[in-house]
Amino acid sequence: MNFPSKLIENAVNQLSSLPGIGKKTALRLVLHMLKQDKNNINQFGNSFIDLVENINYCMNCYSVSDNKMCEICSNPKRDQKTICVVEDIRVMMAVENTHQFKGVYHVLGGLISPMDGIGPTDIKVEELVQKVENGNIQEIIFTLSTTMEGDTTNFYLFRRLKDSGVKISSIARGISIGDELEYTDEITLGTAIISRLPYENSLSK
Amino acid sequence: MNFPSKLIENAVNQLSSLPGIGKKTALRLVLHMLKQDKNNINQFGNSFIDLVENINYCMNCYSVSDNKMCEICSNPKRDQKTICVVEDIRVMMAVENTHQFKGVYHVLGGLISPMDGIGPTDIKVEELVQKVENGNIQEIIFTLSTTMEGDTTNFYLFRRLKDSGVKISSIARGISIGDELEYTDEITLGTAIISRLPYENSLSK
Repeated sequence: MNFPSKLIENAVNQLSSLPGIGKKTALRLVLHMLKQDKNNINQFGNSFIDLVENINYCMNCYSVSDNKMCEICSNPKRDQKTICVVEDIRVMMAVENTHQFKGVYHVLGGLISPMDGIGPTDIKVEELVQKVENGNIQEIIFTLSTTMEGDTTNFYLFRRLKDSGVKISSIARGISIGDELEYTDEITLGTAIISRLPYENSLSK
Repeated sequence: MNFPSKLIENAVNQLSSLPGIGKKTALRLVLHMLKQDKNNINQFGNSFIDLVENINYCMNCYSVSDNKMCEICSNPKRDQKTICVVEDIRVMMAVENTHQFKGVYHVLGGLISPMDGIGPTDIKVEELVQKVENGNIQEIIFTLSTTMEGDTTNFYLFRRLKDSGVKISSIARGISIGDELEYTDEITLGTAIISRLPYENSLSK
């Protein structure tokens, strides 16, 4: 694209460097910005500079946090002995929204993905193993996506932790609430039959 | 959404203020940024601050420009007597890409849209009328979208300019090159029949 202005070109290139945003979308967004109040765009730009300059990670769970320790880890009402292992804070926020989990989290910061060159040392695996070795942990709950990368990470973590004596569980895989069975794919349906539960345990909460 | 960090929340709110970007997408983009180099994100933020602080509009055509007058308006090879009226620089860039137009542009900065509260005084209509009254213009080419807003703007501009003696034309509406006629909507097909041309004029260039 031939831009009539270097400033526009620069802003478009920056926006389109984000995943899922192409040059045309970026240009549309930049033109939208130019119709906004100047202060708003200054705030827009500064919010990202603020973010990287001041972002902090919880020293316990590696979630992002404004303090040294995040609100969940420093909450005495949360069960510090039960750890929910998640890929990133999006999954953490999703689990928090269910109000079904009273333990703490461990944010891996990614999944093992040989295709993308991400190995166990690129995510917070050693830190989790260390936590378990330090004792005082009762249960580790793998809460990873049911994808190739999620399963690979689950398997690797399991191999590293299985001799620690800590209870290791994984969230249930089965039919989504509200799903109609005739449209469910056969792998999910097959897994759900193999993982069947006593009826009184299977009711949705 | 309950964010674990105010900084994240702020960045997500800023990104999701852009049209077509929701909170979940914004959070995905912000987490992507956090995996990038700190300098990259500083550059990202600064590109928008730069943009609004230093953006300039061409004094002749109202396109964005790094100088007082844009490259097209200050190019002596361009025909200053033929003006292509466009909605914004995206259309201008699209017309430039065709390499079929050797005149100059007039960027309205929007279309008349009573539904959105945009009237003739909110876009550069008076400036165009003024240009024509100042003389030295031979032809005005309306190059606006074939939407309700585009047609309204065309009609308003035509009424304002029709007594000036300047030739007023509009880009051709018809069948897109490569379109199969059985799938063309009837309004386009009807317009194309009414606007038929001598065969030797109708070949695509």
